[in-house]
Amino acid sequence: MAASSEHKESPSNNPGLHSTPDDATKGYIMQQTMFRIKDPKVSLDFYSRVLGMSLLKRLDFPEMKFSLYFLGYEDPASAPTEPADRTVWTFSKKATIELTHNWGTESDPEFKGYHNGNSEPRGFGHIGVTVDDTFKACERFEQLGVEFVKKPDDGKMKGIAFIKDPDGYWIEIFDLKTIKSVAAGAS
Amino acid sequence: MAASSEHKESPSNNPGLHSTPDDATKGYIMQQTMFRIKDPKVSLDFYSRVLGMSLLKRLDFPEMKFSLYFLGYEDPASAPTEPADRTVWTFSKKATIELTHNWGTESDPEFKGYHNGNSEPRGFGHIGVTVDDTFKACERFEQLGVEFVKKPDDGKMKGIAFIKDPDGYWIEIFDLKTIKSVAAGAS
Repeated sequence: MAASSEHKESPSNNPGLHSTPDDATKGYIMQQTMFRIKDPKVSLDFYSRVLGMSLLKRLDFPEMKFSLYFLGYEDPASAPTEPADRTVWTFSKKATIELTHNWGTESDPEFKGYHNGNSEPRGFGHIGVTVDDTFKACERFEQLGVEFVKKPDDGKMKGIAFIKDPDGYWIEIFDLKTIKSVAAGAS
Repeated sequence: MAASSEHKESPSNNPGLHSTPDDATKGYIMQQTMFRIKDPKVSLDFYSRVLGMSLLKRLDFPEMKFSLYFLGYEDPASAPTEPADRTVWTFSKKATIELTHNWGTESDPEFKGYHNGNSEPRGFGHIGVTVDDTFKACERFEQLGVEFVKKPDDGKMKGIAFIKDPDGYWIEIFDLKTIKSVAAGAS
Protein backbone atom coordinates (compact mmCIF):
# COMPACT_ATOMS: atom_id res chain seq x y z
CA MET A 1 0.00 0.00 0.00
CA ALA A 2 2.93 2.32 0.60
CA ALA A 3 4.37 3.86 -2.53
CA SER A 4 7.68 2.21 -3.12
CA SER A 5 9.51 5.49 -2.75
CA GLU A 6 7.94 6.20 0.64
CA HIS A 7 8.38 4.32 3.86
CA LYS A 8 5.41 2.91 5.65
CA GLU A 9 5.40 5.57 8.36
CA SER A 10 5.41 8.56 6.02
CA PRO A 11 2.56 11.11 6.15
CA SER A 12 1.62 10.28 2.56
CA ASN A 13 0.86 6.74 3.69
CA ASN A 14 -0.88 7.81 6.90
CA PRO A 15 -3.76 10.26 6.48
CA GLY A 16 -4.03 12.61 9.42
CA LEU A 17 -0.38 12.32 10.42
CA HIS A 18 1.62 15.51 10.88
CA SER A 19 5.32 14.89 10.52
CA THR A 20 6.65 18.06 12.13
CA PRO A 21 5.73 18.40 15.81
CA ASP A 22 4.54 21.87 16.83
CA ASP A 23 7.25 23.76 18.72
CA ALA A 24 4.74 24.18 21.54
CA THR A 25 5.02 20.45 22.26
CA LYS A 26 8.80 20.42 22.64
CA GLY A 27 9.88 18.70 25.81
CA TYR A 28 6.62 16.80 26.24
CA ILE A 29 7.14 13.31 27.65
CA MET A 30 4.87 10.30 27.91
CA GLN A 31 5.12 10.00 31.66
CA GLN A 32 2.52 7.62 33.03
CA THR A 33 -0.09 4.96 32.47
CA MET A 34 -2.69 4.79 35.22
CA PHE A 35 -4.86 1.84 36.17
CA ARG A 36 -6.72 0.92 39.32
CA ILE A 37 -5.69 -1.91 41.60
CA LYS A 38 -7.51 -3.79 44.30
CA ASP A 39 -4.67 -4.39 46.79
CA PRO A 40 -1.37 -2.49 46.85
CA LYS A 41 0.35 -5.20 48.88
CA VAL A 42 -0.24 -7.72 46.11
CA SER A 43 0.47 -5.33 43.24
CA LEU A 44 3.64 -3.88 44.77
CA ASP A 45 4.91 -7.42 45.25
CA PHE A 46 4.13 -8.32 41.63
CA TYR A 47 5.59 -5.24 39.98
CA SER A 48 8.72 -5.13 42.16
CA ARG A 49 9.52 -8.82 42.71
CA VAL A 50 8.31 -10.29 39.40
CA LEU A 51 8.85 -7.40 36.98
CA GLY A 52 11.72 -5.63 38.72
CA MET A 53 10.17 -2.18 38.97
CA SER A 54 10.86 0.21 41.83
CA LEU A 55 8.47 2.37 43.81
CA LEU A 56 9.39 5.87 42.71
CA LYS A 57 6.75 7.81 44.58
CA ARG A 58 3.75 7.23 46.80
CA LEU A 59 1.05 9.82 47.37
CA ASP A 60 -1.78 9.34 49.87
CA PHE A 61 -4.95 11.42 49.75
CA PRO A 62 -6.72 10.63 53.05
CA GLU A 63 -9.64 13.01 52.48
CA MET A 64 -10.48 11.31 49.21
CA LYS A 65 -9.44 7.89 50.50
CA PHE A 66 -7.07 6.86 47.77
CA SER A 67 -3.35 6.35 47.27
CA LEU A 68 -1.18 6.52 44.17
CA TYR A 69 1.87 4.35 43.63
CA PHE A 70 4.24 5.32 40.82
CA LEU A 71 6.54 2.52 39.69
CA GLY A 72 9.08 2.25 36.94
CA TYR A 73 12.54 1.20 35.85
CA GLU A 74 14.42 4.03 37.49
CA ASP A 75 16.89 3.71 40.32
CA PRO A 76 15.24 5.18 43.42
CA ALA A 77 18.70 5.59 44.92
CA SER A 78 19.04 8.58 42.61
CA ALA A 79 15.77 10.13 43.84
CA PRO A 80 15.87 13.23 46.05
CA THR A 81 15.03 12.54 49.69
CA GLU A 82 12.84 15.61 50.17
CA PRO A 83 9.26 14.44 49.38
CA ALA A 84 8.23 17.34 47.11
CA ASP A 85 11.48 17.11 45.20
CA ARG A 86 10.91 13.39 44.83
CA THR A 87 7.50 14.12 43.31
CA VAL A 88 9.08 16.40 40.73
CA TRP A 89 11.80 13.83 40.04
CA THR A 90 9.16 11.15 39.46
CA PHE A 91 7.09 13.26 37.11
CA SER A 92 10.19 14.06 35.08
CA LYS A 93 10.65 10.36 34.29
CA LYS A 94 9.20 8.66 31.24
CA ALA A 95 7.30 5.42 31.25
CA THR A 96 6.01 5.02 34.78
CA ILE A 97 2.93 3.13 35.82
CA GLU A 98 0.58 4.80 38.27
CA LEU A 99 -1.38 2.34 40.38
CA THR A 100 -4.48 3.87 41.96
CA HIS A 101 -5.74 2.25 45.15
CA ASN A 102 -9.18 3.27 46.33
CA TRP A 103 -9.02 2.41 50.00
CA GLY A 104 -11.02 -0.56 51.15
CA THR A 105 -11.25 -2.64 47.98
CA GLU A 106 -8.57 -5.02 49.30
CA SER A 107 -10.84 -6.16 52.13
CA ASP A 108 -14.30 -5.65 50.62
CA PRO A 109 -16.03 -9.00 49.93
CA GLU A 110 -18.47 -7.15 47.65
CA PHE A 111 -15.73 -5.73 45.46
CA LYS A 112 -16.08 -7.22 41.99
CA GLY A 113 -12.59 -6.41 40.72
CA TYR A 114 -11.44 -4.20 37.89
CA HIS A 115 -11.99 -4.57 34.17
CA ASN A 116 -8.92 -5.20 32.03
CA GLY A 117 -10.38 -3.85 28.79
CA ASN A 118 -10.00 -7.02 26.75
CA SER A 119 -13.58 -8.25 27.00
CA GLU A 120 -16.66 -6.13 26.34
CA PRO A 121 -16.67 -3.22 26.76
CA ARG A 122 -13.21 -3.14 25.22
CA GLY A 123 -10.75 -0.26 25.14
CA PHE A 124 -7.42 -0.40 26.92
CA GLY A 125 -5.46 -3.52 25.99
CA HIS A 126 -2.19 -3.91 27.85
CA ILE A 127 1.14 -2.50 28.84
CA GLY A 128 4.24 -4.01 27.30
CA VAL A 129 7.66 -4.70 28.76
CA THR A 130 10.76 -5.30 26.65
CA VAL A 131 12.87 -8.00 28.31
CA ASP A 132 16.27 -9.46 27.50
CA ASP A 133 14.95 -12.87 26.43
CA THR A 134 11.23 -13.68 26.28
CA PHE A 135 11.59 -17.44 26.71
CA LYS A 136 13.98 -17.11 29.64
CA ALA A 137 11.83 -14.43 31.25
CA CYS A 138 8.71 -16.56 30.83
CA GLU A 139 10.36 -19.59 32.40
CA ARG A 140 11.08 -17.45 35.42
CA PHE A 141 7.51 -16.11 35.44
CA GLU A 142 6.21 -19.69 35.39
CA GLN A 143 8.42 -20.62 38.31
CA LEU A 144 7.03 -17.61 40.16
CA GLY A 145 3.47 -18.76 39.50
CA VAL A 146 2.51 -15.92 37.16
CA GLU A 147 -0.68 -16.45 35.18
CA PHE A 148 -0.32 -16.48 31.40
CA VAL A 149 -2.77 -15.30 28.75
CA LYS A 150 -0.42 -16.55 26.04
CA LYS A 151 2.86 -18.39 26.41
CA PRO A 152 5.64 -17.56 23.95
CA ASP A 153 5.09 -20.77 21.97
CA ASP A 154 1.30 -20.48 21.80
CA GLY A 155 -0.55 -19.29 18.72
CA LYS A 156 0.79 -17.69 15.59
CA MET A 157 3.00 -15.08 17.13
CA LYS A 158 5.85 -17.17 18.49
CA GLY A 159 8.18 -15.40 20.83
CA ILE A 160 5.79 -12.94 22.38
CA ALA A 161 3.84 -13.65 25.53
CA PHE A 162 1.09 -12.10 27.58
CA ILE A 163 0.97 -12.43 31.35
CA LYS A 164 -1.60 -11.18 33.83
CA ASP A 165 -0.97 -8.88 36.74
CA PRO A 166 -2.80 -9.54 40.04
CA ASP A 167 -5.88 -7.58 38.89
CA GLY A 168 -6.00 -9.37 35.56
CA TYR A 169 -4.47 -6.60 33.45
CA TRP A 170 -2.46 -7.93 30.52
CA ILE A 171 1.26 -7.34 30.15
CA GLU A 172 2.91 -8.14 26.86
CA ILE A 173 6.42 -9.58 27.04
CA PHE A 174 8.82 -9.42 24.08
CA ASP A 175 12.49 -8.99 23.32
CA LEU A 176 14.40 -7.29 20.54
CA LYS A 177 15.45 -10.60 18.96
CA THR A 178 12.01 -12.18 18.65
CA ILE A 179 10.06 -9.04 17.84
CA LYS A 180 11.78 -8.88 14.48
CA SER A 181 10.38 -12.21 13.37
CA VAL A 182 6.94 -11.52 14.84
CA ALA A 183 6.74 -8.23 13.00
CA ALA A 184 7.96 -9.93 9.83
CA GLY A 185 4.46 -11.43 9.65
CA ALA A 186 3.11 -7.95 9.12
CA SER A 187 2.99 -6.23 5.76
CA MET B 1 2.02 6.59 58.83
CA ALA B 2 5.65 6.32 57.78
CA ALA B 3 8.08 5.99 60.61
CA SER B 4 9.91 9.27 60.85
CA SER B 5 13.22 7.63 60.13
CA GLU B 6 11.92 6.01 56.95
CA HIS B 7 10.80 7.69 53.78
CA LYS B 8 7.35 7.08 52.43
CA GLU B 9 8.53 4.79 49.64
CA SER B 10 10.53 2.43 51.85
CA PRO B 11 9.66 -1.29 51.97
CA SER B 12 8.88 -1.02 55.68
CA ASN B 13 6.10 1.42 54.80
CA ASN B 14 4.90 -0.58 51.81
CA PRO B 15 4.01 -4.22 52.49
CA GLY B 16 4.75 -6.41 49.51
CA LEU B 17 7.42 -4.14 48.07
CA HIS B 18 10.80 -5.63 47.23
CA SER B 19 13.50 -3.01 47.13
CA THR B 20 16.18 -4.92 45.26
CA PRO B 21 15.17 -5.89 41.72
CA ASP B 22 16.04 -9.44 40.73
CA ASP B 23 19.07 -9.53 38.42
CA ALA B 24 16.90 -11.41 35.93
CA THR B 25 14.92 -8.21 35.33
CA LYS B 26 17.94 -6.06 34.47
CA GLY B 27 17.43 -4.15 31.25
CA TYR B 28 13.66 -4.47 31.32
CA ILE B 29 11.90 -1.36 30.00
CA MET B 30 8.31 -0.18 30.15
CA GLN B 31 7.88 0.05 26.42
CA GLN B 32 4.24 0.47 25.47
CA THR B 33 0.67 1.19 26.47
CA MET B 34 -1.88 -0.25 24.08
CA PHE B 35 -5.44 0.90 23.52
CA ARG B 36 -7.88 0.46 20.68
CA ILE B 37 -8.94 3.28 18.40
CA LYS B 38 -11.83 3.68 16.02
CA ASP B 39 -10.19 5.70 13.22
CA PRO B 40 -6.43 6.01 12.68
CA LYS B 41 -6.83 9.13 10.55
CA VAL B 42 -8.40 10.98 13.46
CA SER B 43 -6.10 9.54 16.14
CA LEU B 44 -2.89 10.08 14.16
CA ASP B 45 -3.94 13.69 13.65
CA PHE B 46 -4.61 14.13 17.38
CA TYR B 47 -1.46 12.51 18.72
CA SER B 48 0.86 14.11 16.16
CA ARG B 49 -0.66 17.58 15.66
CA VAL B 50 -2.06 18.22 19.13
CA LEU B 51 0.33 16.26 21.37
CA GLY B 52 3.45 16.36 19.19
CA MET B 53 4.13 12.64 19.02
CA SER B 54 5.68 10.95 16.00
CA LEU B 55 4.72 7.75 14.26
CA LEU B 56 7.60 5.45 15.10
CA LYS B 57 6.33 2.27 13.48
CA ARG B 58 3.28 0.95 11.69
CA LEU B 59 2.48 -2.74 11.36
CA ASP B 60 -0.40 -4.06 9.26
CA PHE B 61 -1.79 -7.56 9.69
CA PRO B 62 -4.08 -8.04 6.68
CA GLU B 63 -5.03 -11.65 7.51
CA MET B 64 -6.27 -10.61 10.92
CA LYS B 65 -7.52 -7.26 9.64
CA PHE B 66 -5.84 -4.95 12.10
CA SER B 67 -3.06 -2.39 12.16
CA LEU B 68 -0.80 -1.18 14.95
CA TYR B 69 0.51 2.37 15.19
CA PHE B 70 3.35 3.03 17.64
CA LEU B 71 3.75 6.68 18.58
CA GLY B 72 6.02 8.47 20.98
CA TYR B 73 8.37 11.33 21.68
CA GLU B 74 11.29 10.02 19.70
CA ASP B 75 12.76 11.58 16.59
CA PRO B 76 11.87 9.30 13.68
CA ALA B 77 14.73 10.86 11.73
CA SER B 78 16.99 8.70 13.87
CA ALA B 79 15.07 5.52 13.00
CA PRO B 80 16.64 2.95 10.68
CA THR B 81 15.12 2.89 7.20
CA GLU B 82 15.02 -0.88 6.87
CA PRO B 83 11.55 -1.93 8.14
CA ALA B 84 12.64 -4.82 10.41
CA ASP B 85 15.40 -2.69 11.91
CA ARG B 86 12.85 0.05 12.50
CA THR B 87 10.68 -2.43 14.40
CA VAL B 88 13.60 -3.32 16.67
CA TRP B 89 14.43 0.37 17.11
CA THR B 90 10.83 1.11 18.12
CA PHE B 91 10.65 -1.72 20.63
CA SER B 92 13.88 -0.52 22.22
CA LYS B 93 12.24 2.81 23.09
CA LYS B 94 10.48 3.48 26.36
CA ALA B 95 7.08 5.08 26.74
CA THR B 96 5.37 4.53 23.41
CA ILE B 97 1.65 4.28 22.84
CA GLU B 98 0.39 1.48 20.65
CA LEU B 99 -2.88 2.28 18.90
CA THR B 100 -4.72 -0.79 17.65
CA HIS B 101 -7.07 -0.31 14.73
CA ASN B 102 -9.42 -3.15 13.95
CA TRP B 103 -10.25 -2.49 10.32
CA GLY B 104 -13.72 -1.24 9.53
CA THR B 105 -14.68 0.47 12.78
CA GLU B 106 -14.03 3.87 11.25
CA SER B 107 -16.88 3.42 8.77
CA ASP B 108 -19.20 1.09 10.68
CA PRO B 109 -22.41 2.88 11.72
CA GLU B 110 -23.07 0.06 14.21
CA PHE B 111 -19.76 0.55 15.99
CA LYS B 112 -20.46 1.72 19.52
CA GLY B 113 -17.00 3.09 20.31
CA TYR B 114 -14.44 2.03 22.88
CA HIS B 115 -14.65 2.18 26.66
CA ASN B 116 -12.22 4.53 28.43
CA GLY B 117 -12.23 2.71 31.76
CA ASN B 118 -13.47 5.62 33.86
CA SER B 119 -17.12 4.58 34.11
CA GLU B 120 -18.32 1.12 35.07
CA PRO B 121 -16.73 -1.30 34.55
CA ARG B 122 -13.68 0.66 35.63
CA GLY B 123 -10.03 -0.30 35.29
CA PHE B 124 -7.62 1.64 33.11
CA GLY B 125 -7.69 5.36 33.90
CA HIS B 126 -5.50 7.47 31.66
CA ILE B 127 -2.12 8.15 30.20
CA GLY B 128 -0.25 11.24 31.39
CA VAL B 129 1.95 13.69 29.55
CA THR B 130 4.39 16.03 31.27
CA VAL B 131 4.36 19.38 29.46
CA ASP B 132 6.40 22.54 29.89
CA ASP B 133 3.51 24.62 31.26
CA THR B 134 0.06 23.19 31.91
CA PHE B 135 -1.86 26.46 31.57
CA LYS B 136 -0.10 27.43 28.35
CA ALA B 137 -0.52 23.93 26.94
CA CYS B 138 -4.22 23.92 27.82
CA GLU B 139 -4.80 27.31 26.18
CA ARG B 140 -3.39 25.82 23.00
CA PHE B 141 -5.52 22.69 23.38
CA GLU B 142 -8.61 24.89 23.75
CA GLN B 143 -7.71 26.79 20.60
CA LEU B 144 -7.35 23.47 18.83
CA GLY B 145 -10.81 22.40 19.96
CA VAL B 146 -9.69 19.63 22.31
CA GLU B 147 -12.33 18.32 24.71
CA PHE B 148 -11.58 18.70 28.40
CA VAL B 149 -12.56 16.44 31.29
CA LYS B 150 -11.02 18.92 33.73
CA LYS B 151 -9.46 22.29 33.01
CA PRO B 152 -6.41 23.29 35.07
CA ASP B 153 -8.44 25.69 37.23
CA ASP B 154 -11.33 23.29 37.87
CA GLY B 155 -11.76 21.39 41.11
CA LYS B 156 -9.37 20.94 43.97
CA MET B 157 -6.27 20.00 42.07
CA LYS B 158 -5.34 23.29 40.44
CA GLY B 159 -2.73 23.09 37.77
CA ILE B 160 -3.45 19.64 36.44
CA ALA B 161 -5.85 18.99 33.58
CA PHE B 162 -7.46 16.07 31.84
CA ILE B 163 -8.22 16.12 28.14
CA LYS B 164 -9.91 13.53 25.94
CA ASP B 165 -8.46 11.89 22.89
CA PRO B 166 -10.75 11.25 19.88
CA ASP B 167 -11.98 7.94 21.34
CA GLY B 168 -12.67 9.48 24.73
CA TYR B 169 -9.59 8.15 26.52
CA TRP B 170 -8.34 10.51 29.21
CA ILE B 171 -4.93 12.16 29.08
CA GLU B 172 -3.63 13.88 32.18
CA ILE B 173 -1.63 17.05 31.60
CA PHE B 174 0.79 18.41 34.22
CA ASP B 175 4.11 20.18 34.50
CA LEU B 176 7.00 20.00 36.94
CA LYS B 177 6.14 23.35 38.50
CA THR B 178 2.50 22.70 39.32
CA ILE B 179 2.80 19.04 40.23
CA LYS B 180 4.71 20.02 43.34
CA SER B 181 1.80 22.01 44.75
CA VAL B 182 -0.78 19.42 43.70
CA ALA B 183 1.16 16.68 45.43
CA ALA B 184 1.57 18.90 48.48
CA GLY B 185 -2.10 18.14 49.15
CA ALA B 186 -1.13 14.53 49.73
CA SER B 187 0.16 13.19 53.00
